[in-house]
Order: sequence, then structure tokens, then C-alpha cells
Amino acid sequence: MVARTPLLRAVLIDDPDYPAFVRVIWNAHVTELSDLAEPERARLMLAVHAVETALREVIKPDKINLASLGNQVPHLHWHVIARFAGDAHFPQPIWAARQREPDADRLAMCRQKLPALRARIIELLSAD
Amino acid sequence: MVARTPLLRAVLIDDPDYPAFVRVIWNAHVTELSDLAEPERARLMLAVHAVETALREVIKPDKINLASLGNQVPHLHWHVIARFAGDAHFPQPIWAARQREPDADRLAMCRQKLPALRARIIELLSAD
Repeated sequence: MVARTPLLRAVLIDDPDYPAFVRVIWNAHVTELSDLAEPERARLMLAVHAVETALREVIKPDKINLASLGNQVPHLHWHVIARFAGDAHFPQPIWAARQREPDADRLAMCRQKLPALRARIIELLSAD
Repeated sequence: MVARTPLLRAVLIDDPDYPAFVRVIWNAHVTELSDLAEPERARLMLAVHAVETALREVIKPDKINLASLGNQVPHLHWHVIARFAGDAHFPQPIWAARQREPDADRLAMCRQKLPALRARIIELLSAD
């Protein structure tokens, strides 16, 4: 768990290929983004933006990937993923066939930055 | 092309497995959602919401999938995809390994509804 607000929570995903992978989960049970009214949609997207901003500032990835799928767990959530040109699936989405073994040094570097990432997400989410 | 506003355009993707698949493309060249200032981010997400709403109303899918990846084409765009429990990849993302041959009758039914989908997207986008 990285941060919690009254409406949502941000969770760091423990993915061996993607250490800088955050899930933003809406607390109330809804399935689709369009199940939320406009003020709540805006709150959720501000939180996704805060997580994206923290990832870019702290991790400095080559690309951010955003996705709200929910086919397996039909509870509204967003994947916010820091991607690097040499990661396990680049330039494919992380759900596609694995392309290569990712660079161990870069993974270790990302893991070292997780406390700073966590602190920055908490800071930005509490400013929303 | 489905619809165009001064800031963005919605394009129907000609995917044999996913006839009800719309891409929302921001006209100005930026790479990440967080490259936009808040009013523009809100405009873009309202358009994604309009497309999602039109897909749900007209196509009545089992799930909507949203994604902004841009690893291959680093120009800000959103995939808005109508998913069905028996489609080619369900419950996996459409970028994962194919699970099955999708039902031809359902694909034909979706294709028949594309003119209505297009009309509803134009209507909702012009109301934004």
C-alpha cells in the first residue's frame, strides 16, 4: 500500500519485471469509469495523474503506460506503469509476449527509488 | 474517421477481431497524458468518456477496456475497446496471446451497429 484517500488507494505492484508499477483502485465497487459521475471521474483521473507525475519525476522512465481493463477483476482500477526501452516487453504492452530478460541493474536502480516514489505519491495525492 | 473536434479526433479501428474499437487521438503532438495541462487533460478524458458511453449504449459489451500506451507511436492517444466474454482474447488484454476464434455472429452484429455508434459518438463529442 502506498497511499489511501477517502475515495481511492494506490498500491505498489510487486512485479519482478516492473518494480515501478502502481495500481490506483477506486474504493467503492463500480465496474467501468463511466459508472462514476463527473466529479468522481475527475478525482480518479487526478489521482492517476499524480501517480504518473511521481513515476516520471522519480523513476524517469522512457514511457508511461496507463490502462483500465478489469476483465478478470471487474472492479474499477488503473494500471500506471513505468516502461523502459530495454524492459521485458518493450515496445509491446506488458501483457504481450515477453521480448527479453530485462537489465538487472536498471531493475535494482528502480527498486532503490521506491521509497522516494512512495513519498512523492503520498505528497501529490494529499495535495489533490 | 468518426469525429473531429478542434483538439482531438476519434477514429474507428479496422480490427477484424474488435470491430467496436475506437482510438481517441490528441491533435497536438505530446507524448504523455501529464504533458497536458489540467484543462486539456479534462477535455481529453471527457472525450474518452463520451466514446466509452457511446460504446456501452450502442454495442452493450461485457466490459470496456481503456489504455494509453504509445510505446510504438509516442503520440498521445487512447484505445477504447468493447470487450465480450467470448472474444478473441477475453479475459486477457487484446495484446496477450489469442484465446479462441471469436463468434462470427457477434462480430457481424457489432459491425451492423457501427453507423449508430458513429452517430452517437459524434453527438456526444459535440455536446462536450
